Amino acid sequence: MSLPDTPLLPRFAPVILAGGSGTRFWPRSRRARAKQVLALDGDRTMIQETLARLQPLSAPEDLWVITNDLLAAEIAGQLPEVARHHILSEPMARNTAPACALAAFLLERVDPAIVLGIFPSDHVVTNRARFVEVLREGIAVAGSGATIVVLGVPPTRPETGYGYIAQGAPALEAAAGTHATIPVRQVIRFTEKPDRARAEEFLATGNFAWNSGIFLWRADTLANAIREHCPELVAPLEAIVAAFGTPQFAAVFAEEYPACKSISIDYAVLEPRSALGEGASGIVCLPADFGWNDLGSWDSLYEHRAAATSDARPNVIEADASVAMEAHGNYVHAPGKTVTLLGVEDLVVVDTGDALLVTTRERSQDVGKLTRALADAGHHHLT
Amino acid sequence: MSLPDTPLLPRFAPVILAGGSGTRFWPRSRRARAKQVLALDGDRTMIQETLARLQPLSAPEDLWVITNDLLAAEIAGQLPEVARHHILSEPMARNTAPACALAAFLLERVDPAIVLGIFPSDHVVTNRARFVEVLREGIAVAGSGATIVVLGVPPTRPETGYGYIAQGAPALEAAAGTHATIPVRQVIRFTEKPDRARAEEFLATGNFAWNSGIFLWRADTLANAIREHCPELVAPLEAIVAAFGTPQFAAVFAEEYPACKSISIDYAVLEPRSALGEGASGIVCLPADFGWNDLGSWDSLYEHRAAATSDARPNVIEADASVAMEAHGNYVHAPGKTVTLLGVEDLVVVDTGDALLVTTRERSQDVGKLTRALADAGHHHLT
Repeated sequence: MSLPDTPLLPRFAPVILAGGSGTRFWPRSRRARAKQVLALDGDRTMIQETLARLQPLSAPEDLWVITNDLLAAEIAGQLPEVARHHILSEPMARNTAPACALAAFLLERVDPAIVLGIFPSDHVVTNRARFVEVLREGIAVAGSGATIVVLGVPPTRPETGYGYIAQGAPALEAAAGTHATIPVRQVIRFTEKPDRARAEEFLATGNFAWNSGIFLWRADTLANAIREHCPELVAPLEAIVAAFGTPQFAAVFAEEYPACKSISIDYAVLEPRSALGEGASGIVCLPADFGWNDLGSWDSLYEHRAAATSDARPNVIEADASVAMEAHGNYVHAPGKTVTLLGVEDLVVVDTGDALLVTTRERSQDVGKLTRALADAGHHHLT
Repeated sequence: MSLPDTPLLPRFAPVILAGGSGTRFWPRSRRARAKQVLALDGDRTMIQETLARLQPLSAPEDLWVITNDLLAAEIAGQLPEVARHHILSEPMARNTAPACALAAFLLERVDPAIVLGIFPSDHVVTNRARFVEVLREGIAVAGSGATIVVLGVPPTRPETGYGYIAQGAPALEAAAGTHATIPVRQVIRFTEKPDRARAEEFLATGNFAWNSGIFLWRADTLANAIREHCPELVAPLEAIVAAFGTPQFAAVFAEEYPACKSISIDYAVLEPRSALGEGASGIVCLPADFGWNDLGSWDSLYEHRAAATSDARPNVIEADASVAMEAHGNYVHAPGKTVTLLGVEDLVVVDTGDALLVTTRERSQDVGKLTRALADAGHHHLT
């Protein structure tokens, strides 16, 4: 992708977080085959799509992935563009703050002014050109100093499953970027997942965005924020960073990482920082208006796929061939088969070689309960 | 099975009709794999179960099957007990009257007094001991003379998919049999499939039975009835019978059989005979009170299997293993897989190697529409 007429960007290091286990796409997802390594939407896996979106913005030597032991080999195979020693395996899950902080401390040693981006590996972006445009602006804003950039998704429904970002005035001083069509706003505060009534209020104001989990900041800015807000992470992470590139790295990682508090980057840094107040916090929000979908369940995959059609309640059928009669709104995955639907609505049917899931779109967010029941029944090999 | 304390039965020749193509159990049933050669209920196929029920009543040399070219080899493989030349392949489907008449003319040459029984090959019988008991009585009654015995199923619901038998007075003169616990009643008339209101009336009277399609009569009685009511069948069938046992048999069968009128035995013989009036017609009805189910659809298979449990709306799941949460009344066939159900009700899901059917129990009788749509779409190999 050529990017003419744009000023030189700061050096940019995307850090893809790929440690999630994800049971909500069972039976396609398993412990060792999480959502991010599946091709749920198209031919490429979600982590391959995530990387492909970022490649126009970064040099190959600045690509990083943080995952776990179960997934690292699979991810290394899927992402040959990423240097193997840049794919870090957490010895245990510790939520996002330790992973982000580890990246900040590692990259601060490379170049304190490098802009570090945190990217979930399991989101869908429909408009990749707009993604690059927004990211270029965000990288420029973050690269100009101590500003923390968060990407907020324009909400389309009173969703109770996401955190929200309350946005304030336009951030004029942050307009070090390039693109007049991208509004940059001060962040007032981050809020927890709201109940339905609050979510509806948020939506009505027009000032709230969903927290996308995408953050941009200079390595030194994030490292300093960790030192300020999470000082207890510093000692173990500095020990790990000191061992990076040595034969002891894995052993030190395994020994020190469990000492890190398990906490999200939102809780650890963004919320305390935002408490300084609009403007003073230095946190700004850019719109993630590039067709974002976090594919949280079979239902949201259906919605994403259905949105690409002109039908109101299409059947989304992934199969060799299909016949549907008086059937609407169903999602069926049965590769290699001929699928026939008769008189059924809003179902989710997923057929893998060893398992068959039958549920409704409405209940598909509870698929995790099934995997726990399977494990309880002794079918660990299927989870 | 030993049958002490019962008088010697007349010689009995069961004729199993197995020509149906049956699309209603698609995708398990196909043109060349009709319902009767499938193990829908248990380990044995339906025609194997049919034969097994009859073996206590008949000598091996008196077993006959009438089927078609698509199924004959499969049936011969499944029924090694039946002499290969007793498995007749109709060159084309001609409904039941020509098949029954062919059997009557063939057996009349063997022994005019032999009792010939017509048995569909795709019905389920839960109480096999009672089946033998009722059949023994029926064979005794039919063997005593010109009486035609039909088996009528005690109706349990106002079913509109079956023909009904109106029953009259007890047939005292037919009590040549042995069993006081089996009421034999005169047949007043046969009726077409009724509408819902009439079916409810029939049920309320207590005098109607469903026509099971099982008939017993002496070979000469049936042959004479054909000569009387369907004289146009006589010439082609006598030509075929004359060729039986010769190298020309298949060729003569193929040449003459198409000349036979395509008509059911009910229409051809039983209805005109019953018009002679109760008693005069010589038709009596015995109760098919042995747990009869014609398995007309996935729904009726579900009902049959569910009736064997103590639950009100159990899930019937044919699979390696299963987990069902808040799911009721579903039928799932997915051999070799682990099946999981979450929040779904009254569905039918059938998974074969090449096809996946998803419908409701209520709509499962319309599965034939899907097979026609598949054929129209060029997927003949799946039908």
